[in-house]
Amino acid sequence: MRVHNFSAGPSALPLVALERAREELTDYAGSGMSIMEQSHRGAVYDKVHEEALGLLRELMQVPTTHEILLLTGGATTQFAQVPLNLRHPDQSADYAVAGIWGQKALKEAQHGGKARAAASSETPEGGFFSVPELSSYQIDPQAAFLHVTSNNTVTGTQMKSFPHSEVPLVCDMSSDILSRSIDINQFGLIYAGAQKNLGPSGVTVVIVRKSLIESARKDIPFIWQYRTQAAARSLANTAPTFSIYMLRNVLDWVKSQGGATQMALLNQQKADLLYSTLESRPDVFKLKVERDSRSMMNVVWNLATPELEKRAVAEATAAQMVGLKGHRLVGGMCASIYNAVPMASVEVLCEFLMSFKA
Amino acid sequence: MRVHNFSAGPSALPLVALERAREELTDYAGSGMSIMEQSHRGAVYDKVHEEALGLLRELMQVPTTHEILLLTGGATTQFAQVPLNLRHPDQSADYAVAGIWGQKALKEAQHGGKARAAASSETPEGGFFSVPELSSYQIDPQAAFLHVTSNNTVTGTQMKSFPHSEVPLVCDMSSDILSRSIDINQFGLIYAGAQKNLGPSGVTVVIVRKSLIESARKDIPFIWQYRTQAAARSLANTAPTFSIYMLRNVLDWVKSQGGATQMALLNQQKADLLYSTLESRPDVFKLKVERDSRSMMNVVWNLATPELEKRAVAEATAAQMVGLKGHRLVGGMCASIYNAVPMASVEVLCEFLMSFKA
Repeated sequence: MRVHNFSAGPSALPLVALERAREELTDYAGSGMSIMEQSHRGAVYDKVHEEALGLLRELMQVPTTHEILLLTGGATTQFAQVPLNLRHPDQSADYAVAGIWGQKALKEAQHGGKARAAASSETPEGGFFSVPELSSYQIDPQAAFLHVTSNNTVTGTQMKSFPHSEVPLVCDMSSDILSRSIDINQFGLIYAGAQKNLGPSGVTVVIVRKSLIESARKDIPFIWQYRTQAAARSLANTAPTFSIYMLRNVLDWVKSQGGATQMALLNQQKADLLYSTLESRPDVFKLKVERDSRSMMNVVWNLATPELEKRAVAEATAAQMVGLKGHRLVGGMCASIYNAVPMASVEVLCEFLMSFKA
Repeated sequence: MRVHNFSAGPSALPLVALERAREELTDYAGSGMSIMEQSHRGAVYDKVHEEALGLLRELMQVPTTHEILLLTGGATTQFAQVPLNLRHPDQSADYAVAGIWGQKALKEAQHGGKARAAASSETPEGGFFSVPELSSYQIDPQAAFLHVTSNNTVTGTQMKSFPHSEVPLVCDMSSDILSRSIDINQFGLIYAGAQKNLGPSGVTVVIVRKSLIESARKDIPFIWQYRTQAAARSLANTAPTFSIYMLRNVLDWVKSQGGATQMALLNQQKADLLYSTLESRPDVFKLKVERDSRSMMNVVWNLATPELEKRAVAEATAAQMVGLKGHRLVGGMCASIYNAVPMASVEVLCEFLMSFKA
């Protein structure tokens, strides 16, 4: 029995990636050991590690100008590690704030040095119903970097394009990485916790321009210098081998499905169906996010009252649709429809929404 | 088919812990989802998280004066995070150096501030064949902490007792945590990557005195402050949920076997058998570690020549005994006999050693 999983993250994984793990859990590739029991310096694990890196490079079309690192600690750790590496003493950093994750990233950066909001879509009431207009950005040309959040899980907004400037662009892509084709050349650094589109939690992907690694600070702890992990192929500490193995399995599945282009097509179809279903019952479901900022990954809506929202979540859960409760900051409901959530699950959800009695 | 796994880490896991994971990999506890697909804020995962913390507290007899944190980045990250938190500006820290991990820890600490070797067992030739005598420690009474490594994987040495002083004692216990009963009250802070005695890689256990958390620095990144993770029950970032789930499974197994006392008894029996077997053929096998410093976890020996060592490793591998090649710094062979390595594997190894033709 498998439920329809709309969790915001950790979230649904492709069943085939899980079944592969189950099949070989106590004896990986005839080695007589689990992948978890392999030395991270041994040939068996090393092949998996290189496959994960190679698939990321292929599927995301990462140019040779950029390094791919497999780290830990999630995006929250990158909130600290990015300014630690890229912001030199007395330098400032710019942040576009489009939700609570951007706020948290800015707060961490301000704790350790100079950082400011270069753009914000926060309403006077403290809500976020869009991403900042690119024309509204006031970028400090001397800034160490400009930080953006490509997709906002809580409020359900997503950037459709990215700002151009001389300042290196850093992007928290945790909740929409590999959900569409992106030109990596635009970015100085991309980071993403794996637990939404890439695999289980426990591994964080960082894609960073090599020239930024070279010019980064050296007077910071060795283990948090990007150059340390780049030089060690992300094995400077014992890597989270099982999480990287699952990342490999998920990336293999993405490739088998047709890669980022096909993921984008399917994600658009899933989002279109769900948004149009919600729009077809405007008396029951309220979409607050501005149309141009709607996320293809996290669809957020409200009902008339918190009581009604609670009942809707309960009825959905009873019908095997889980993870639909909205974040406490915005209430309502949130359906996360990441790569691994099949169209069939979205169709079941839409049937439920059409028949829900308000 | 399962081999005899003597890897230094990641290393052997209890088969029952792996089989449990396999059994429920696509449907955990009737939830219709893998444990990997559960929200880290949901009730299903939370129960696992609390069980892991509760079992650690019970099995290691961690007093209420100490907090248990589940972090990431391995011991190597703690090399930086410990001084970042516990060493205030202008303060120095003391290190007892008993091998390459102690050297690395000291190097990281010196990169970020003042730190010095308070004891060392390094020979003039750069080898380590014992741990420093406790009477040789020259502790700076003003030091922020005194750092020791309880067990040295590469050279096969282990501390049998710990120094007493007014300075908080910090211990890298990565390779012998939960292998014996230890009085936690002796320590200000203990850390250990899970991948030797506790589970797969990807989670790092930190046990820290609450008063040290309270007095720790606040002018460092939020996410690397121990107080942040203590306040968030180690969920300040998305925890490595599957690694913690496996940690729980392994701890459940340790409990079922009789806990730390029984582990210590079995580990002593395994080590006694292996050391006595090696000693019975002094013409073939050379034990270089001083008797009083011998590790119960990592048994290290040499043969007459590197060629002979290579052949012994190859013959053992052919006979389904893997991970026996010594670290490149010391050569020879190393059998890691952590908690999850059964006596049966040690017996097979000893039969091999007795019949090996030099």
